[in-house]
Amino acid sequence: MKDMLGREDVISPDEALSRLYKALITPDLPETVVALALSANRIISRDIVSPENLPGFDRSTMDGYAIRASDSFGATDGYPSYLKVTGEVLMGECPSFEIGKSETARIATGGMLPKGADSVVMFEQTNVINEEMIEVLKPTATGENVIQSGEDCKKGETVMTKGHKIRPHDMGALAGLGITKIWVYELPKVAIIATGDEVVPASQDVMPGQVRDINSYSLTGLVETHGGSAVIKGIFRDNYEDLMKAAGDSLKEADIIIITGGSSVGTKDVTAKVINDLGKPGVLFHGVSIKPGKPMIGGIVDGKPLFGLPGHPAAVIVCFELFIKPVLRTLSGETETLNHRFRKTVQAKLSKNISSGAGREDHVRVLLEEKNGELYAIPILGKSGLITTLVKADGTVVIPLRKTGLEQGTEVEVELF
Amino acid sequence: MKDMLGREDVISPDEALSRLYKALITPDLPETVVALALSANRIISRDIVSPENLPGFDRSTMDGYAIRASDSFGATDGYPSYLKVTGEVLMGECPSFEIGKSETARIATGGMLPKGADSVVMFEQTNVINEEMIEVLKPTATGENVIQSGEDCKKGETVMTKGHKIRPHDMGALAGLGITKIWVYELPKVAIIATGDEVVPASQDVMPGQVRDINSYSLTGLVETHGGSAVIKGIFRDNYEDLMKAAGDSLKEADIIIITGGSSVGTKDVTAKVINDLGKPGVLFHGVSIKPGKPMIGGIVDGKPLFGLPGHPAAVIVCFELFIKPVLRTLSGETETLNHRFRKTVQAKLSKNISSGAGREDHVRVLLEEKNGELYAIPILGKSGLITTLVKADGTVVIPLRKTGLEQGTEVEVELF
Repeated sequence: MKDMLGREDVISPDEALSRLYKALITPDLPETVVALALSANRIISRDIVSPENLPGFDRSTMDGYAIRASDSFGATDGYPSYLKVTGEVLMGECPSFEIGKSETARIATGGMLPKGADSVVMFEQTNVINEEMIEVLKPTATGENVIQSGEDCKKGETVMTKGHKIRPHDMGALAGLGITKIWVYELPKVAIIATGDEVVPASQDVMPGQVRDINSYSLTGLVETHGGSAVIKGIFRDNYEDLMKAAGDSLKEADIIIITGGSSVGTKDVTAKVINDLGKPGVLFHGVSIKPGKPMIGGIVDGKPLFGLPGHPAAVIVCFELFIKPVLRTLSGETETLNHRFRKTVQAKLSKNISSGAGREDHVRVLLEEKNGELYAIPILGKSGLITTLVKADGTVVIPLRKTGLEQGTEVEVELF
Repeated sequence: MKDMLGREDVISPDEALSRLYKALITPDLPETVVALALSANRIISRDIVSPENLPGFDRSTMDGYAIRASDSFGATDGYPSYLKVTGEVLMGECPSFEIGKSETARIATGGMLPKGADSVVMFEQTNVINEEMIEVLKPTATGENVIQSGEDCKKGETVMTKGHKIRPHDMGALAGLGITKIWVYELPKVAIIATGDEVVPASQDVMPGQVRDINSYSLTGLVETHGGSAVIKGIFRDNYEDLMKAAGDSLKEADIIIITGGSSVGTKDVTAKVINDLGKPGVLFHGVSIKPGKPMIGGIVDGKPLFGLPGHPAAVIVCFELFIKPVLRTLSGETETLNHRFRKTVQAKLSKNISSGAGREDHVRVLLEEKNGELYAIPILGKSGLITTLVKADGTVVIPLRKTGLEQGTEVEVELF
């Protein structure tokens, strides 16, 4: 769709994402090895296969007595089976003795079943007569209270498939398998380029008319908390040559390039021209029906994504969430799972009316407050560009494309930061 | 409550947590300074106060013309105001000229308002007659489309209070204030002690009867993803002297001490005795009405928390979630907020019946599956101690104390990992 001047209309967020994914090329991701203790949240780059049977021996899951199940058949409180205690299984040791008919040995949870025994009867189901004799009060089935050798996983069995993100309990499982060096994908590199003649480094004093570089830092935080490695490239003037050089250099070393700001008139066109001139297919969309973030640019050059974001700090955060986060996950090598569909949300009542334009997806920052046991979402409606509104917000309420606003008291879903 | 043998009954999770918090002493937490780019998820240890007015100058929030509002009063499409264009505000510069009556200057979003001007009229509400003359088609109010100096925050205003956790957008806000070195609390140190005569290091081959140290690694992952610094102390034999020394040393250097396993009979009593002998008040509870995790021990020595967890890997994860995570957060210096109450959850249908004992809180690991557009939670009911069940799980369903089970088809809340 083009307007009267031949410019294309803004497109929907879904359409924007779909254009990006059509042109995105997922490269052969480089791998590296990390130590198990440092592997949390990394994405494994090779299937992990069990190097051995686990457990490697029949193991008790209870504190009790190792027996031959047949010796307990028919046992009751009134007619117990009498077994001779011939030994004790020491933890961590392979028992040297064997359990014969009508014999038993004490065993603790995790202990190795002695030869001859095929089940464990719990302490609670026995009576001790003396050092050498117990009564068994209940029958035990073969294999009861025992994990068989290889029951957890068999040698050669795939335990995790490539693309799996390592969670704390997965670290435990890997330790159990004796795998302490893990092949993972390198973190995708994200180059962050700030533009704007008025923008100065965060560490610098500002002169009248200048502002500090906010977006390089919020983007660094976002990239690093979502599985990427951020590279702050610095601040560049609003001219074609400087930006072309910065973006061209970044394209060589990074997997994703983000250009933010400048708010000067014409900067957006410079960014679009740079993306188009760097290679094919170039700009895929310029303008998305979201607020904040409408003037956003998305493009692909030689399979790599480049984003041109408006300078407004709140817009940068929304654009990251909607477009850069999914692309970053794809380039991290992580397999898409059901879990990714769900977010940390909470239901709350809207404290006042919010208006929105039909055909526009509004992302409204809210803070949460509890009154009389009810949770309220209070929209933070500051002028654009206010920093302190960033700090106050607890989350975001989305007003979908087809709605023109939400009324006070509406139950809304707040996506929490 | 004591049973017939004079032993205390297990207590509820709430009671256990409340005993811990009564005896816990939050020490003066040590501080350190981190660079802004590395400050994500750290807890600030001092209030952050704005060192200057922000913005430091009246700034335009629109692309348009800087005017005196009074010059536009009464303007309409049919009777526009005519203004003389006397200049252009360059980005990042302090305009050297002044706007007189019936004068105007081009200004972009973020530009500094020239002296004399008090508002900005958007491009869309003007017509360009020629290089030197525009028509204004709508009246503008004083201050319209302008952020006043100090409107975002005033010099000396508190922007974040101590105990606040730095999020990506907070990093942006700090950059905007020019604060690039941040005072934060040191991460609490958590010493992890593994016990068990059968336990060998994860990197070691296992002999029959031995198992590898799983829990030190899942705990490392849990501690580090929840704001602590994990110190793996190693594996100790199941005897009083070794454990006393390991726990005593850890008490000197760490803020929280976790002792896991040994499944050997009597190990739990050794752990309890060690905690009691290290100092006052010692063991606060021994046995909590949860599954898995029932034999858990909680204690405090000289204000510092010590936990004795059963060796079962799934129990360790549940005990961490219920008891260690909140204590770790308290010791990290983070202020309790509304946000902490909410978790990442999803509603699903239970795929089969689960039974539970009344008076016991069951934590059942589940995997998620989608069938015909409906989400199902499939309980993973392996024998205790299986490693692969850790890997398969997507989340946990809790069966509360008063329930004896849940029926197939029940809508349950799954807390996602």
